[in-house]
Amino acid sequence: MSANILILNGPNLNLLGLREPEIYGRRTLDDIRALCESHAQGLGLAVDFRQSNHEGELIDWIQQAHADHAGIVLNPGGYTHTSVALMDALRGQTLPAIEVHLSNIHRREPFRQHSYVAQAVQGSICGFGARGYLLALDGMRALLDGD
Amino acid sequence: MSANILILNGPNLNLLGLREPEIYGRRTLDDIRALCESHAQGLGLAVDFRQSNHEGELIDWIQQAHADHAGIVLNPGGYTHTSVALMDALRGQTLPAIEVHLSNIHRREPFRQHSYVAQAVQGSICGFGARGYLLALDGMRALLDGD
Amino acid sequence: MSANILILNGPNLNLLGLREPEIYGRRTLDDIRALCESHAQGLGLAVDFRQSNHEGELIDWIQQAHADHAGIVLNPGGYTHTSVALMDALRGQTLPAIEVHLSNIHRREPFRQHSYVAQAVQGSICGFGARGYLLALDGMRALLDGD
Amino acid sequence: MSANILILNGPNLNLLGLREPEIYGRRTLDDIRALCESHAQGLGLAVDFRQSNHEGELIDWIQQAHADHAGIVLNPGGYTHTSVALMDALRGQTLPAIEVHLSNIHRREPFRQHSYVAQAVQGSICGFGARGYLLALDGMRALLDGD
Amino acid sequence: MSANILILNGPNLNLLGLREPEIYGRRTLDDIRALCESHAQGLGLAVDFRQSNHEGELIDWIQQAHADHAGIVLNPGGYTHTSVALMDALRGQTLPAIEVHLSNIHRREPFRQHSYVAQAVQGSICGFGARGYLLALDGMRALLDGD
Amino acid sequence: MSANILILNGPNLNLLGLREPEIYGRRTLDDIRALCESHAQGLGLAVDFRQSNHEGELIDWIQQAHADHAGIVLNPGGYTHTSVALMDALRGQTLPAIEVHLSNIHRREPFRQHSYVAQAVQGSICGFGARGYLLALDGMRALLDGD
Amino acid sequence: MSANILILNGPNLNLLGLREPEIYGRRTLDDIRALCESHAQGLGLAVDFRQSNHEGELIDWIQQAHADHAGIVLNPGGYTHTSVALMDALRGQTLPAIEVHLSNIHRREPFRQHSYVAQAVQGSICGFGARGYLLALDGMRALLDGD
Amino acid sequence: MSANILILNGPNLNLLGLREPEIYGRRTLDDIRALCESHAQGLGLAVDFRQSNHEGELIDWIQQAHADHAGIVLNPGGYTHTSVALMDALRGQTLPAIEVHLSNIHRREPFRQHSYVAQAVQGSICGFGARGYLLALDGMRALLDGD
Amino acid sequence: MSANILILNGPNLNLLGLREPEIYGRRTLDDIRALCESHAQGLGLAVDFRQSNHEGELIDWIQQAHADHAGIVLNPGGYTHTSVALMDALRGQTLPAIEVHLSNIHRREPFRQHSYVAQAVQGSICGFGARGYLLALDGMRALLDGD
Amino acid sequence: MSANILILNGPNLNLLGLREPEIYGRRTLDDIRALCESHAQGLGLAVDFRQSNHEGELIDWIQQAHADHAGIVLNPGGYTHTSVALMDALRGQTLPAIEVHLSNIHRREPFRQHSYVAQAVQGSICGFGARGYLLALDGMRALLDGD
Amino acid sequence: MSANILILNGPNLNLLGLREPEIYGRRTLDDIRALCESHAQGLGLAVDFRQSNHEGELIDWIQQAHADHAGIVLNPGGYTHTSVALMDALRGQTLPAIEVHLSNIHRREPFRQHSYVAQAVQGSICGFGARGYLLALDGMRALLDGD
Amino acid sequence: MSANILILNGPNLNLLGLREPEIYGRRTLDDIRALCESHAQGLGLAVDFRQSNHEGELIDWIQQAHADHAGIVLNPGGYTHTSVALMDALRGQTLPAIEVHLSNIHRREPFRQHSYVAQAVQGSICGFGARGYLLALDGMRALLDGD
Repeated sequence: MSANILILNGPNLNLLGLREPEIYGRRTLDDIRALCESHAQGLGLAVDFRQSNHEGELIDWIQQAHADHAGIVLNPGGYTHTSVALMDALRGQTLPAIEVHLSNIHRREPFRQHSYVAQAVQGSICGFGARGYLLALDGMRALLDGD
Repeated sequence: MSANILILNGPNLNLLGLREPEIYGRRTLDDIRALCESHAQGLGLAVDFRQSNHEGELIDWIQQAHADHAGIVLNPGGYTHTSVALMDALRGQTLPAIEVHLSNIHRREPFRQHSYVAQAVQGSICGFGARGYLLALDGMRALLDGD
Repeated sequence: MSANILILNGPNLNLLGLREPEIYGRRTLDDIRALCESHAQGLGLAVDFRQSNHEGELIDWIQQAHADHAGIVLNPGGYTHTSVALMDALRGQTLPAIEVHLSNIHRREPFRQHSYVAQAVQGSICGFGARGYLLALDGMRALLDGD
Repeated sequence: MSANILILNGPNLNLLGLREPEIYGRRTLDDIRALCESHAQGLGLAVDFRQSNHEGELIDWIQQAHADHAGIVLNPGGYTHTSVALMDALRGQTLPAIEVHLSNIHRREPFRQHSYVAQAVQGSICGFGARGYLLALDGMRALLDGD
Repeated sequence: MSANILILNGPNLNLLGLREPEIYGRRTLDDIRALCESHAQGLGLAVDFRQSNHEGELIDWIQQAHADHAGIVLNPGGYTHTSVALMDALRGQTLPAIEVHLSNIHRREPFRQHSYVAQAVQGSICGFGARGYLLALDGMRALLDGD
Repeated sequence: MSANILILNGPNLNLLGLREPEIYGRRTLDDIRALCESHAQGLGLAVDFRQSNHEGELIDWIQQAHADHAGIVLNPGGYTHTSVALMDALRGQTLPAIEVHLSNIHRREPFRQHSYVAQAVQGSICGFGARGYLLALDGMRALLDGD
Repeated sequence: MSANILILNGPNLNLLGLREPEIYGRRTLDDIRALCESHAQGLGLAVDFRQSNHEGELIDWIQQAHADHAGIVLNPGGYTHTSVALMDALRGQTLPAIEVHLSNIHRREPFRQHSYVAQAVQGSICGFGARGYLLALDGMRALLDGD
Repeated sequence: MSANILILNGPNLNLLGLREPEIYGRRTLDDIRALCESHAQGLGLAVDFRQSNHEGELIDWIQQAHADHAGIVLNPGGYTHTSVALMDALRGQTLPAIEVHLSNIHRREPFRQHSYVAQAVQGSICGFGARGYLLALDGMRALLDGD
Repeated sequence: MSANILILNGPNLNLLGLREPEIYGRRTLDDIRALCESHAQGLGLAVDFRQSNHEGELIDWIQQAHADHAGIVLNPGGYTHTSVALMDALRGQTLPAIEVHLSNIHRREPFRQHSYVAQAVQGSICGFGARGYLLALDGMRALLDGD
Repeated sequence: MSANILILNGPNLNLLGLREPEIYGRRTLDDIRALCESHAQGLGLAVDFRQSNHEGELIDWIQQAHADHAGIVLNPGGYTHTSVALMDALRGQTLPAIEVHLSNIHRREPFRQHSYVAQAVQGSICGFGARGYLLALDGMRALLDGD
Repeated sequence: MSANILILNGPNLNLLGLREPEIYGRRTLDDIRALCESHAQGLGLAVDFRQSNHEGELIDWIQQAHADHAGIVLNPGGYTHTSVALMDALRGQTLPAIEVHLSNIHRREPFRQHSYVAQAVQGSICGFGARGYLLALDGMRALLDGD
Repeated sequence: MSANILILNGPNLNLLGLREPEIYGRRTLDDIRALCESHAQGLGLAVDFRQSNHEGELIDWIQQAHADHAGIVLNPGGYTHTSVALMDALRGQTLPAIEVHLSNIHRREPFRQHSYVAQAVQGSICGFGARGYLLALDGMRALLDGD
C-alpha cells in the first residue's frame, strides 16, 4: 500500500483561484489537490489533502497524523508567522514534515519573513506557486527513502 | 432590499456589560446589536450581527460574506494585534471593511497600538464606545454610496 | 445658541485638492469646511474651521479653545507623529477632542503608525477621507450629549 | 460541597507521555488529572480537568467558569506567548487564576520568556513538572482562604 | 536528621511589613521565617533563613551551601534582574534551587520581567506573597524525593 | 548693573496654575516669574522672563541672547524631547545655559526620558516644581562666578 | 527671464560665520547668498535666498514656491531629522528639490544620520561646506534641462 | 540543444564531504555535481556547475550568465546573509533564479535567518541536503516551461 | 536641633581630586564634605556625609536613614545605571531623596543616560560639579519646608 | 600636468544601460566615463576610471591611489552598506574622497540608508544620476583648490 | 625589587576546579596562582593574587593598587558584563590593566558578549584557560617595558 | 621539523606603519613579520606570514592550511565584523585558531564590538599592538602542547 502523505492547508487557502485570479492565478485549491494526487501517484504515494481556517483544527490533524500517515506537507498560511502552538505540534510528533508557501515570503512584508513553523520542519520551499507542493512531495519521497 | 452589513465581534466581546460594568459600562453586546439594527434601518441598511471567540470562525465568516453582504464592520478584540490570518482574510475579499474599537487603543498597553487588521480595512474608528459602531455604519453607508 | 466646535487642520492640509488631485481627490479644504458647516448645522452645532502650518499656532488655538468652543476636532497632519507639545496642549485642556485623518495611516509608512496626538484624545477616526470630518462631528455630538 | 477548580490545558498537552517520553517523562495528561483529583480532595477541592488545542474553546471555557467554578488553574501551552485574547478573557472575569508550566520557560527559547497570560493571573509557577499542578492547587486553596 | 534548606532573601526584603504595610502587608520577614520553619517541619525539613543587601554575601552563601544544606530557596529581590554573578553562583553548584517572588513580577515594570536567576534554577514561583515560600518548600520536598 | 538672565519657557507652560491645579499646583507662570525676580535680586541678577509655544521663537530668543544677557535658564516643555533645532541653537551660542523641569521627567512616560536639550546645557535640574527655577538661578550665579 | 530658484535655510543657519568661526568657518550666510547669486547668474538662474528658524514658515514658503519659482534648494538644519511636516510639504508640490548640508551628516551624531527630508527630494549633497550650495545649483540646472 | 543551467556554489562549499563528514555527510561537491548532471539530463537540461570563495567572482558569473545560460541555481553559502552586491547582481539580470541551502537555515543561528539573496530570486529551497539541488532543477524546469 | 541630612556617595567618588585633577578638578570629597557642612549650617541643617564602593552598604545606609535623618542626598556613581536594588531601597523608605551628579550625564556615554535611581527620587540635579551638592541641600531645605 | 582623479565604480555598475534601460536609463558606464573625461578636462583634471565587482580589488586600488592620483571619487554600489574594510581603506589614506550614488539611496530599501563609506569621505552626493559624477568632480576641484 | 602585579579574580572564580571539573578542568584557583607566581618570576615580576565575590571589594582593591603595584590583571567574572562601577574604578586610576577570561566569551550567551570592563583596559585576552593569565603577564611585562 | 603556523592579515594591514604613523606607530607589517619569525623560532615554531585585501583569498588560505600548517593566527581587519563566510571557513577546518587585533576593539565604534570571527576561534587577543601577535604565538604553542 502506498505511504499516505497528509497535506495541510491553513487559513484563506480555500479561496485560491476564486478571488483576485490576476494576482494568485486561476488554480483553485481543488486544482492543487488534483495535481498533488496525480504527482503523488507517480511517486508511489497517496495524499490526504485538507484545509482549515482554524489553528486548533490544524493542530488536531497534526497530532493525529502518526496513525495513518507517513509524512506531513504543510502550507500554514497566516499561522506561519504567529503560531507557537503549531510549531509545538510539529515538534511533538516524529513524522517528516515539509513547509511550502506559494509565494516567496522573503519578498513580502517584514512580518512574513519570520516563520515559527520553519523551525519545526525538515525542509522549506517557497516561491514556486502550486508547483511547490509537487517539489515538496518529491522531497518527502526522498526523506522517506532515506535519500 | 436593504444592503446587508456583516458586523463581526471578536473574542470576549460577548461579556460586554455583564462583567465589570463600572469599567466597560452597562451596555451588553445585545444592546449594541439593537442600537446597530435601529441605526442601520435609518440608513437603509440591514445588519447581521455575530460574535465568536474563535479566530477560525471569524475567518470563515469573512470569507463567506461576499455571498450575502455588502460590507463588513469588525471589532476584532484581542485578535487585532496578533492575527495575520484575519488580516489575510480581509485582504482576500473585496467588500468594504471598517475596523471599530470601543476604547482608544492608543492609550492602552503598547502591544495594543499595533493592529494587523488596520492594514486591511478602508477605515478605522476607536474610542467612541458603542457609538463607534454607529459611526462605522455611517461610514459604511458613505463607502457604499461612493461618497 | 449652537455649541461651537473648533476644527483644526495642521500642516499642508491647505493644499488639499489643489495639487495631485488624482491622489488626494478634488475636494479642497474649503469644500471640507463647507461640508462640515452644513453637517454641523444638522447636528445643532457651529464650526470654527482653521488651518495652520505652524505647530505653535495650533497649540495657541488649542489653549484658547475653552473660551469659545465646546469641543475640538483635529487633523494634525505631519505633527501627529512628532509633536509632544501638541499632545501636551490637548492634555492640558478639558474639552472633548477627536483626531481625524483623511487616509488610513496604518497602511502608510511605519513612522506614521505612531501618533502622539492619539494619546490625548477621546476618539480617533481615519481612512474615510473628507467624510471622516463628518463622522468626527457625529462623534462629538454624542460626546457632548453624554451618549 | 467542595469548591470546584477548573484546570485548563492548552495545545499539545494531550500528547504528554505518549510521545518522546525520554524528554517529557512517561506521565500522561490522564495521570496528571488523577494526581490533581487526588491532591484536590485532600485540600477540600474538586477539579474539572480539560484540554483543548483551540484558542477559542479555551476562551469559551474561561468565560463560562464563573457559573460553576471557584478558581482557574491554566497551562496555556503555546498560547502563553501569543494570545492577547486569552489574556483578555482572564482579565474579563473575577475568579482567582494561576498559570502553571511544566518546564522552566525561562531556560528555553527567547520567545517563550514573554507571557501574555502571566499578566492576567495572580500567581505563576514553572519548572516543577506535573508537581507544579499540585503546587498551583495548594496556592489556589490559599487564595480561596484569603491566606 | 532533617534535610536543611537554605532560604536566602536579597536586598530590601528585611523591610517587609515595617514600611508601607498597606502595600506589602503586615507580615515581616521574621513572620515569614516562622511560617517557613513551621511548614518545613511538617515536610521533614529544617530551614536556615537569611537576608542580605550585599550581592557578594549572597554569592558567598550560595557557594558554601553544599556543605550543610540540601537545597536552596532564593528570593533575590532587585538582584534578580541585574546579577550575572548570582546566576553564575547558582549554576556553579549542584543543589536543587527554587526562585520565589512575593509579587507577580510579570505585572510590574518591564525591567522586572527579565530574570537572570530564573535561568539557573529548577523552578520559579511568583505572585503568592508569603505563601510562595511554603509552595517553594513543597516543591523542594518533591525535588529531593525525586518526585 | 546686574547681569541679566534670560529665562525661557516652552509650550503649554503659560497654562500653569490655570488648569488642573490639583495636579500642577496653583502657582501660575506669573507667580514663578515673581519668585524668580525676587530670588534673582538677592543674587545680584536681573531676569528677562518669557514664554512661547513656538519652537522658532524660542530659537530666535536663544540666538539673540548674547546681546543683552549673561546666561540662559530654559524649561523647554514638550520640545525637550523632539527638537534638534533647539539643541543646535543652544550649542551655537556661548552663554552658560541650564535646563529646568517642574516634574521629575524620569518618572513619566518613556519618551520624556530622552532630552536633546540636556545635551547642550551645562546643568540640568528636575523634580523641584517652581523651586527648580530658583535652584537654576543659584547654579547660574555660581557658573557666572566661575565657582 | 531667468528661472528663479528658491534657496531655503533652516534653523540656526543665520548664525553662520558669526559664532565659532574656528569650527564653521568665517563665511556668513550673506556670503553664501552672494556666492549663490553670482554662481546662479553664470547658470542663467536667479535665486531667492531666505532663512527662518520657524518650521511653519519654511512649510509656508515651500507651498508657495510653485507660483514664482522653478526649483527648491533646501538646507533644513535641525528640522532635517525631525520634521514629517516638512517632508510632506516637499512631497505635496511638484518642483524639483535638492537637499544640501554644509557638513557630512553621516560623520556626526547617530540621530543626524536619518533624514526625513531626503525622502522627499530628487538629490542630496553634503560635506562640501558653502560650495555644496553651488553644486546644488549645478544639479538644479541639470534637472531643469532634463539632463 | 538542452537549456544550460548555471549552478553556483559560494564560499566553503568546496569542502563538502571532505571535512566533518559526520555532520555534513560524505557527499562531496563533485558528488553533487554528478547528481545534478544526471538529474538535469532527465529534465532535458544541461548544467554548468561552479564554486568560488570570492564574492566578486560569483557576481561576475551571474552578470555573464545571460549569454550562455537559461537559468541560475545558487547556493550562496555565507554570502547569503551579508551580500547586498550579490542581491543586486541577481536583480540586475533577467534569468530565473533559485536559491538552495543544504541545511534548514531557519533552525540555525539568528543571523542565518535573514537572506539578502532570497529577496532577488523566484524561489527558495532549504533543508533537503544534496537533494535540494535536484528539487531546484525540477523547479527551474517548471519555471522555464512557464508551468 | 537641626534636621540631619544623609549625604551618600557611591563607588569611586572617594578618589575625587586625587586623580586626574585636570579632568575632575582639585576638589576632594573631603572638600565637598566641608562645603556641604558649611552650606547646610546656613540652611539650619546638619549633614552626615558618607562614601562607599559597596552597593549593599549603600542600601543598608538608606534603609537605616529613617531613624536619624530627615532626608537623603545621593550621588550613586556607577550604580546609578545598573542597580535596581538601590532604586528599591529608595522606594522602600519615605524620606525625601535627591539625586546629584557632578557631570552632566546626558552628555556622556549612552549607558549613562538611563538612571534607575532617578525613578525613585523627588528631584535630580546634574552638571554643576561640587556646587550641585549645595543646590541639592537648598532643594532639600525647600522639600522639608513643604515649599 | 593635470591632477589625476581616480574614479572607482563598485559591483554591478558595469551593467549600467545594458540591462533594464527603462529603469536605469540608456547611459552605459562607458558613456559616464566619456562624460567624466570631458567634464574633467574643463576643470583642468584628468580621470582614471575603473570598475570592479571585487571588494578586495577596490581596496587595492584605493591603497595605491596615493602614488598617481590627487583624489578619489567612489560609487561603491552594494559595498556601500556592508563593507567596513572599504571604509577602513578610505580612512587609511589621505587623498580627498567623494562618494556618489546614481539614485537617491534614502528613498530605497532601509538597508540602503546606512553607509559605511559615507563615514570615511569628505562629501557625499546622491540622486543626480550620471550628472552626480560631474558634480563630484566639481566638488573635487574645489577641495583641491582649498576652496 | 620586582614590579608587583595585582591579579584580581571576581565572583565564583574561587570555585575553579572544585566543582564540575569535567567542564572547567581540574585546575583550582590556587593552581593558577602558583602558575602565575612561577611565570611572573621568570619575567622579573611579583604577583599579588586575590579573589572576591564582592563588587565593592574589587573596586576597593583597584583604587588602592597604585600604592604598591605596577599593573593590574583582572578576571572580573560575572561583573564583566554588568558593572559600570568597576569600569569607572579602572578608568579612575593610571596603572596599565589587562582583562582575562578563561573561556571565549564570544561563544557563550549573548549577554556575555558585552563587556564594560573591556572599555577600561589596555588589552583583553580570552579563551586560553589558565594559560590566559600567563599571556596577560607577558603582555603586562611588555606594557611596563613600553614595548 | 618545526610546526608551521599560518599568520593571516586581512584588509588594509599592509599599510601599517606607512600611513599615519602618529596613530598606528611606525612598525610596518614587515616589521611584525620579522618579530613573529624571531619569536616563533624561540618557541620551536615556523611562521608563514601573509596579507590580503580579498575576503575570498583569506578563505582559500584557511581552507588549504590543513595541508602544511599546524595552526592559524588571524588578524581579520575589517572582515572581523562582517564576514560570515570567514567564520564558516574557520569552523570548517580543525586546526587551532587564534584571533588577534592590534587595537582594543571594544573601545572603538560600536560596529567593531561584534566579531563573527571570534565565534570560530579558540582564543582572542586585542589591544597589545604588534606584541599581540607574539602573545598569540605563545598561546598557539600552548594549544599545540595541549597545555
